[in-house]
Amino acid sequence: MKKIPEPTRKRLIRLAQLLLQLIQNGDIIITSLQIQELTGWSNTTIRKDISYINVKCGASNGYKIEELHKAISRKFDLHINAAKKKCCIVGLGKIGEALLEYTGFKNSRFELVAGFDPNANRTEILNAPFPLYTTMRLEQIIKELDIEYAILSTSDKDAPAIAEKLAQWNIKGIVNYTNAVISVPSTITVKDVGIISALQTLW
Amino acid sequence: MKKIPEPTRKRLIRLAQLLLQLIQNGDIIITSLQIQELTGWSNTTIRKDISYINVKCGASNGYKIEELHKAISRKFDLHINAAKKKCCIVGLGKIGEALLEYTGFKNSRFELVAGFDPNANRTEILNAPFPLYTTMRLEQIIKELDIEYAILSTSDKDAPAIAEKLAQWNIKGIVNYTNAVISVPSTITVKDVGIISALQTLW
Repeated sequence: MKKIPEPTRKRLIRLAQLLLQLIQNGDIIITSLQIQELTGWSNTTIRKDISYINVKCGASNGYKIEELHKAISRKFDLHINAAKKKCCIVGLGKIGEALLEYTGFKNSRFELVAGFDPNANRTEILNAPFPLYTTMRLEQIIKELDIEYAILSTSDKDAPAIAEKLAQWNIKGIVNYTNAVISVPSTITVKDVGIISALQTLW
Repeated sequence: MKKIPEPTRKRLIRLAQLLLQLIQNGDIIITSLQIQELTGWSNTTIRKDISYINVKCGASNGYKIEELHKAISRKFDLHINAAKKKCCIVGLGKIGEALLEYTGFKNSRFELVAGFDPNANRTEILNAPFPLYTTMRLEQIIKELDIEYAILSTSDKDAPAIAEKLAQWNIKGIVNYTNAVISVPSTITVKDVGIISALQTLW
């Protein structure tokens, strides 16, 4: 069994997301050239990536989308019924509130299990399919529920201090929706997705 | 005059954002070791990066934060009064609505000038400091206002088709807040910042 390189793994997981989109559109077959068009990855890279998962859904006339999706999902344990990675949202301003309502989690390997805000009014007013707590209880709930990932959507001002705490409490990764630069030990992965940070990477 | 490598440019622009944070905290001096702690970039990389901007604010006892911030801003034309890059938001659901209200644009090199939604009710109900239009007028307004960047926050389902249109209308870059895989010609930069996409890169 070949070890799958990290970039391949990331592309295949992204490809599974694309395939799910195509299934929902009613598409049946896709060629590696069509995947190239849709993703920007080269035809050769795509064929090589797919070769890692020993899929038997035929590459000569294109891949059967549903089978390819199933094969990738099985390989990386992406199927919906697998144990999901627990995530929390920290900061329930407008962005946090919007994320509470995102329904795409149900097709993913992730699950939102708690939300936090310093303001008890916010946690009482907002509706969510999981409990909302004041930030004071962050440490306790992370430990009780074994939360692995945090979505940071506090104010930019509060973000660095909270990120530092999250790191101490053994969060594995942070999706940073604020535009603050946050600093955590290198064992923790941070993905900066604040609007200004994102625009700066484009420019 | 040395040409500044792209990774250096990106780090320096990110550093400027960090320095602004520190100025707002009232900090005066920072050493390259402290920057290393806050960013995870090595001390050596940081000193080398800063050497590109010929800053005269002393590295032996640390950099004067405000001067360093000014020097980087001057170098990359980041100062607030410079002509800003025009951006629009496409899709005014919960996420788009939250972004409409984000105040951090004023300290950035970017400016939101228009918002779009297919639903005329949304564009009428929502408040923004710039005009909101129905998506039908997207092409016209992008051309009239010379909009360079688009923030995509439509439904996942609508995202691929709209991204394709944005590419045809000469948008330079897209910040993709949806979780759809969007495909555009390689001349256009896409930054995927949807919550599921972001979580997948962490895992």
